[in-house]
Amino acid sequence: MLPQGYTIRKLELGDYEPYVETLRVLTTVGDIPLDKFKDVFAHWEKLSDTYMPRVITNENGIVVATGMLLVERKIIHECGSVGHIEDISVAKSEQGKGLGISMIKELSGVAKEVGCYKVILDCSPHNVGFYEKCGYKNDGSEMCLRL
Amino acid sequence: MLPQGYTIRKLELGDYEPYVETLRVLTTVGDIPLDKFKDVFAHWEKLSDTYMPRVITNENGIVVATGMLLVERKIIHECGSVGHIEDISVAKSEQGKGLGISMIKELSGVAKEVGCYKVILDCSPHNVGFYEKCGYKNDGSEMCLRL
Repeated sequence: MLPQGYTIRKLELGDYEPYVETLRVLTTVGDIPLDKFKDVFAHWEKLSDTYMPRVITNENGIVVATGMLLVERKIIHECGSVGHIEDISVAKSEQGKGLGISMIKELSGVAKEVGCYKVILDCSPHNVGFYEKCGYKNDGSEMCLRL
Repeated sequence: MLPQGYTIRKLELGDYEPYVETLRVLTTVGDIPLDKFKDVFAHWEKLSDTYMPRVITNENGIVVATGMLLVERKIIHECGSVGHIEDISVAKSEQGKGLGISMIKELSGVAKEVGCYKVILDCSPHNVGFYEKCGYKNDGSEMCLRL
Protein backbone atom coordinates (compact mmCIF):
# COMPACT_ATOMS: atom_id res chain seq x y z
CA MET A 1 0.00 0.00 0.00
CA LEU A 2 1.35 3.41 -0.97
CA PRO A 3 1.24 6.28 1.55
CA GLN A 4 -1.69 8.68 1.06
CA GLY A 5 -1.22 10.98 -1.92
CA TYR A 6 1.47 8.77 -3.49
CA THR A 7 0.92 7.34 -6.97
CA ILE A 8 2.59 4.71 -9.11
CA ARG A 9 2.58 5.34 -12.85
CA LYS A 10 4.55 5.20 -16.10
CA LEU A 11 7.63 7.39 -16.40
CA GLU A 12 6.94 10.66 -18.23
CA LEU A 13 9.36 12.98 -20.01
CA GLY A 14 8.57 15.71 -17.47
CA ASP A 15 9.98 13.52 -14.69
CA TYR A 16 13.50 14.17 -16.01
CA GLU A 17 15.14 15.90 -13.04
CA PRO A 18 13.71 13.99 -10.04
CA TYR A 19 14.00 10.69 -11.97
CA VAL A 20 17.71 11.20 -12.58
CA GLU A 21 18.24 12.40 -8.99
CA THR A 22 16.46 9.35 -7.57
CA LEU A 23 18.68 7.01 -9.63
CA ARG A 24 21.76 8.58 -7.99
CA VAL A 25 20.81 6.74 -4.77
CA LEU A 26 21.37 3.44 -6.60
CA THR A 27 24.65 3.92 -8.45
CA THR A 28 26.84 6.20 -10.56
CA VAL A 29 24.67 8.22 -12.94
CA GLY A 30 26.98 11.00 -14.14
CA ASP A 31 25.93 14.00 -16.14
CA ILE A 32 22.62 13.42 -17.96
CA PRO A 33 21.70 16.46 -20.10
CA LEU A 34 18.04 16.70 -21.08
CA ASP A 35 18.75 15.78 -24.71
CA LYS A 36 20.43 12.51 -23.66
CA PHE A 37 17.52 11.74 -21.35
CA LYS A 38 15.09 12.47 -24.18
CA ASP A 39 16.99 10.15 -26.49
CA VAL A 40 16.82 7.18 -24.09
CA PHE A 41 13.20 8.01 -23.20
CA ALA A 42 12.29 8.01 -26.92
CA HIS A 43 13.99 4.63 -27.35
CA TRP A 44 12.01 3.22 -24.42
CA GLU A 45 8.76 4.67 -25.81
CA LYS A 46 9.43 3.24 -29.27
CA LEU A 47 10.03 -0.17 -27.70
CA SER A 48 7.13 0.10 -25.29
CA ASP A 49 6.46 -3.67 -25.37
CA THR A 50 10.02 -4.16 -24.13
CA TYR A 51 10.77 -1.25 -21.76
CA MET A 52 8.20 -0.52 -19.05
CA PRO A 53 9.63 2.15 -16.73
CA ARG A 54 7.55 3.02 -13.67
CA VAL A 55 7.83 5.71 -11.00
CA ILE A 56 6.27 6.45 -7.63
CA THR A 57 5.42 10.10 -7.03
CA ASN A 58 4.85 11.73 -3.64
CA GLU A 59 1.98 14.00 -2.57
CA ASN A 60 3.55 16.83 -4.59
CA GLY A 61 3.63 14.71 -7.75
CA ILE A 62 7.43 14.45 -7.64
CA VAL A 63 9.22 11.20 -8.51
CA VAL A 64 10.66 9.56 -5.39
CA ALA A 65 11.13 5.96 -6.57
CA THR A 66 12.08 4.30 -9.85
CA GLY A 67 11.85 0.85 -11.42
CA MET A 68 12.13 -0.75 -14.84
CA LEU A 69 10.57 -3.88 -16.27
CA LEU A 70 12.39 -5.12 -19.36
CA VAL A 71 10.39 -7.78 -21.20
CA GLU A 72 12.44 -10.30 -23.18
CA ARG A 73 10.83 -12.57 -25.77
CA LYS A 74 12.35 -16.03 -25.94
CA ILE A 75 12.00 -19.31 -27.85
CA ILE A 76 12.24 -21.50 -24.73
CA HIS A 77 9.13 -22.20 -22.63
CA GLU A 78 6.90 -22.24 -25.72
CA CYS A 79 8.08 -18.85 -26.92
CA GLY A 80 7.66 -17.43 -23.44
CA SER A 81 8.59 -13.99 -22.17
CA VAL A 82 10.73 -13.19 -19.14
CA GLY A 83 10.55 -9.95 -17.20
CA HIS A 84 13.81 -8.42 -15.97
CA ILE A 85 13.48 -5.95 -13.09
CA GLU A 86 16.15 -3.26 -13.20
CA ASP A 87 17.17 -0.03 -11.51
CA ILE A 88 14.98 -0.01 -8.41
CA SER A 89 15.81 3.12 -6.47
CA VAL A 90 14.10 5.04 -3.66
CA ALA A 91 15.02 8.62 -2.68
CA LYS A 92 16.84 8.62 0.66
CA SER A 93 14.28 10.85 2.38
CA GLU A 94 11.49 8.49 1.28
CA GLN A 95 12.95 5.21 2.50
CA GLY A 96 11.16 3.14 5.15
CA LYS A 97 7.72 3.80 3.66
CA GLY A 98 7.45 0.53 1.73
CA LEU A 99 7.95 2.20 -1.66
CA GLY A 100 10.46 -0.43 -2.77
CA ILE A 101 8.02 -3.27 -2.08
CA SER A 102 5.22 -1.36 -3.84
CA MET A 103 7.44 -0.89 -6.90
CA ILE A 104 8.44 -4.58 -7.02
CA LYS A 105 4.80 -5.66 -6.67
CA GLU A 106 3.76 -3.27 -9.44
CA LEU A 107 6.45 -4.44 -11.86
CA SER A 108 5.76 -8.10 -11.02
CA GLY A 109 2.07 -7.45 -11.72
CA VAL A 110 2.83 -5.79 -15.06
CA ALA A 111 5.00 -8.79 -15.99
CA LYS A 112 2.12 -11.12 -15.21
CA GLU A 113 -0.34 -8.98 -17.20
CA VAL A 114 1.85 -9.06 -20.30
CA GLY A 115 2.21 -12.84 -20.02
CA CYS A 116 5.71 -13.37 -18.62
CA TYR A 117 6.24 -16.84 -17.15
CA LYS A 118 8.74 -15.47 -14.62
CA VAL A 119 10.39 -12.27 -13.43
CA ILE A 120 14.06 -12.16 -12.47
CA LEU A 121 16.36 -9.57 -10.98
CA ASP A 122 19.88 -9.38 -9.63
CA CYS A 123 20.75 -7.97 -6.24
CA SER A 124 23.56 -7.85 -3.74
CA PRO A 125 23.51 -10.55 -1.05
CA HIS A 126 22.34 -8.08 1.64
CA ASN A 127 19.14 -7.37 -0.35
CA VAL A 128 18.11 -11.03 -0.72
CA GLY A 129 15.87 -10.79 2.38
CA PHE A 130 14.05 -7.75 0.97
CA TYR A 131 13.21 -9.57 -2.27
CA GLU A 132 12.14 -12.67 -0.35
CA LYS A 133 9.58 -10.43 1.41
CA CYS A 134 8.35 -9.56 -2.11
CA GLY A 135 7.85 -13.29 -2.86
CA TYR A 136 11.09 -13.83 -4.80
CA LYS A 137 13.40 -16.80 -4.32
CA ASN A 138 17.15 -17.01 -4.71
CA ASP A 139 17.60 -18.91 -7.96
CA GLY A 140 21.25 -18.57 -8.94
CA SER A 141 24.32 -16.39 -9.20
CA GLU A 142 24.84 -13.19 -11.14
CA MET A 143 28.09 -13.12 -13.11
CA CYS A 144 29.49 -9.85 -14.48
CA LEU A 145 32.17 -8.75 -16.92
CA ARG A 146 33.15 -5.05 -16.87
CA LEU A 147 34.09 -3.76 -20.33
CA MET B 1 39.18 -21.17 -30.87
CA LEU B 2 36.47 -23.04 -32.72
CA PRO B 3 37.15 -26.54 -34.08
CA GLN B 4 38.01 -26.65 -37.79
CA GLY B 5 34.96 -26.11 -40.00
CA TYR B 6 32.89 -24.59 -37.18
CA THR B 7 31.56 -21.05 -37.56
CA ILE B 8 29.95 -18.49 -35.26
CA ARG B 9 27.35 -16.24 -36.83
CA LYS B 10 23.96 -14.53 -36.44
CA LEU B 11 20.90 -16.75 -36.10
CA GLU B 12 19.05 -17.21 -39.41
CA LEU B 13 15.45 -18.22 -40.04
CA GLY B 14 16.65 -21.42 -41.71
CA ASP B 15 18.24 -22.54 -38.42
CA TYR B 16 14.77 -23.24 -37.04
CA GLU B 17 14.94 -26.98 -36.31
CA PRO B 18 18.50 -27.43 -34.98
CA TYR B 19 18.22 -24.15 -33.04
CA VAL B 20 15.12 -25.30 -31.21
CA GLU B 21 16.62 -28.77 -30.64
CA THR B 22 19.82 -27.28 -29.20
CA LEU B 23 17.81 -25.17 -26.76
CA ARG B 24 16.20 -28.37 -25.39
CA VAL B 25 19.55 -29.20 -23.74
CA LEU B 26 19.14 -26.06 -21.61
CA THR B 27 15.55 -26.18 -20.40
CA THR B 28 11.91 -26.87 -21.24
CA VAL B 29 11.17 -25.65 -24.75
CA GLY B 30 7.85 -27.34 -25.61
CA ASP B 31 6.22 -27.38 -29.01
CA ILE B 32 7.53 -24.58 -31.26
CA PRO B 33 5.73 -24.63 -34.64
CA LEU B 34 7.52 -22.78 -37.45
CA ASP B 35 5.02 -19.90 -37.41
CA LYS B 36 5.69 -19.22 -33.71
CA PHE B 37 9.44 -19.36 -34.33
CA LYS B 38 9.03 -16.95 -37.26
CA ASP B 39 7.06 -14.56 -35.07
CA VAL B 40 9.75 -14.38 -32.37
CA PHE B 41 12.51 -14.25 -35.02
CA ALA B 42 10.74 -11.29 -36.71
CA HIS B 43 10.49 -9.51 -33.34
CA TRP B 44 14.22 -10.03 -32.74
CA GLU B 45 15.03 -8.79 -36.26
CA LYS B 46 12.86 -5.71 -35.84
CA LEU B 47 14.65 -4.93 -32.57
CA SER B 48 18.08 -5.80 -33.92
CA ASP B 49 19.81 -3.19 -31.70
CA THR B 50 18.34 -5.02 -28.70
CA TYR B 51 18.34 -8.74 -29.56
CA MET B 52 21.56 -10.21 -30.93
CA PRO B 53 21.14 -13.98 -31.22
CA ARG B 54 24.22 -15.97 -32.26
CA VAL B 55 24.80 -19.61 -33.17
CA ILE B 56 27.76 -21.91 -33.70
CA THR B 57 27.46 -24.27 -36.65
CA ASN B 58 29.47 -27.47 -37.16
CA GLU B 59 31.32 -28.62 -40.27
CA ASN B 60 27.97 -29.48 -41.87
CA GLY B 61 26.63 -25.98 -41.27
CA ILE B 62 24.18 -27.22 -38.62
CA VAL B 63 23.53 -25.23 -35.43
CA VAL B 64 25.11 -26.93 -32.42
CA ALA B 65 25.29 -24.03 -29.92
CA THR B 66 23.11 -21.03 -29.12
CA GLY B 67 23.48 -17.74 -27.29
CA MET B 68 21.66 -14.43 -27.00
CA LEU B 69 22.91 -10.94 -26.20
CA LEU B 70 20.11 -8.64 -25.07
CA VAL B 71 21.23 -4.99 -25.02
CA GLU B 72 19.44 -2.77 -22.52
CA ARG B 73 19.68 1.02 -22.71
CA LYS B 74 19.74 2.73 -19.33
CA ILE B 75 19.91 6.21 -17.82
CA ILE B 76 22.49 5.27 -15.19
CA HIS B 77 26.22 5.28 -16.05
CA GLU B 78 25.79 8.28 -18.37
CA CYS B 79 23.01 6.64 -20.37
CA GLY B 80 25.03 3.44 -20.59
CA SER B 81 24.00 0.11 -22.06
CA VAL B 82 24.18 -3.26 -20.35
CA GLY B 83 24.42 -6.56 -22.19
CA HIS B 84 22.47 -9.51 -20.83
CA ILE B 85 23.67 -12.95 -21.93
CA GLU B 86 20.82 -15.45 -22.16
CA ASP B 87 20.08 -18.99 -23.28
CA ILE B 88 23.56 -20.42 -23.77
CA SER B 89 23.13 -24.02 -24.90
CA VAL B 90 25.44 -26.58 -26.52
CA ALA B 91 24.19 -29.80 -28.16
CA LYS B 92 25.08 -32.81 -25.99
CA SER B 93 27.15 -34.50 -28.71
CA GLU B 94 29.20 -31.29 -29.14
CA GLN B 95 30.11 -30.65 -25.53
CA GLY B 96 33.75 -30.64 -24.41
CA LYS B 97 34.93 -28.78 -27.53
CA GLY B 98 35.02 -25.32 -25.96
CA LEU B 99 31.93 -24.11 -27.84
CA GLY B 100 30.41 -22.58 -24.69
CA ILE B 101 33.50 -20.47 -24.04
CA SER B 102 33.64 -19.43 -27.71
CA MET B 103 30.02 -18.33 -27.53
CA ILE B 104 30.53 -16.32 -24.32
CA LYS B 105 33.61 -14.62 -25.76
CA GLU B 106 31.73 -13.79 -28.97
CA LEU B 107 28.74 -12.29 -27.13
CA SER B 108 31.02 -10.39 -24.72
CA GLY B 109 32.88 -9.01 -27.76
CA VAL B 110 29.64 -7.93 -29.44
CA ALA B 111 28.60 -6.20 -26.20
CA LYS B 112 31.89 -4.31 -26.16
CA GLU B 113 31.55 -3.36 -29.84
CA VAL B 114 28.11 -1.87 -29.32
CA GLY B 115 29.35 0.12 -26.32
CA CYS B 116 28.03 -1.77 -23.29
CA TYR B 117 29.81 -0.87 -20.05
CA LYS B 118 29.24 -4.38 -18.67
CA VAL B 119 27.76 -7.76 -19.54
CA ILE B 120 25.83 -9.78 -16.98
CA LEU B 121 24.30 -13.23 -16.89
CA ASP B 122 22.67 -15.54 -14.39
CA CYS B 123 23.77 -19.11 -13.81
CA SER B 124 23.39 -21.94 -11.36
CA PRO B 125 26.10 -22.17 -8.68
CA HIS B 126 27.77 -25.18 -10.37
CA ASN B 127 28.42 -23.09 -13.51
CA VAL B 128 30.19 -20.23 -11.69
CA GLY B 129 33.60 -21.80 -12.37
CA PHE B 130 32.89 -22.00 -16.10
CA TYR B 131 32.03 -18.31 -16.31
CA GLU B 132 35.07 -17.40 -14.23
CA LYS B 133 37.18 -19.10 -16.92
CA CYS B 134 35.47 -16.71 -19.37
CA GLY B 135 36.62 -13.73 -17.28
CA TYR B 136 33.35 -13.15 -15.40
CA LYS B 137 33.11 -12.48 -11.67
CA ASN B 138 30.37 -13.38 -9.24
CA ASP B 139 28.63 -10.06 -8.58
CA GLY B 140 25.39 -10.86 -6.79
CA SER B 141 22.36 -13.09 -6.44
CA GLU B 142 19.65 -13.86 -8.96
CA MET B 143 16.14 -13.64 -7.52
CA CYS B 144 13.17 -15.17 -9.33
CA LEU B 145 9.39 -15.05 -9.12
CA ARG B 146 7.47 -17.68 -11.10
CA LEU B 147 4.16 -16.35 -12.43
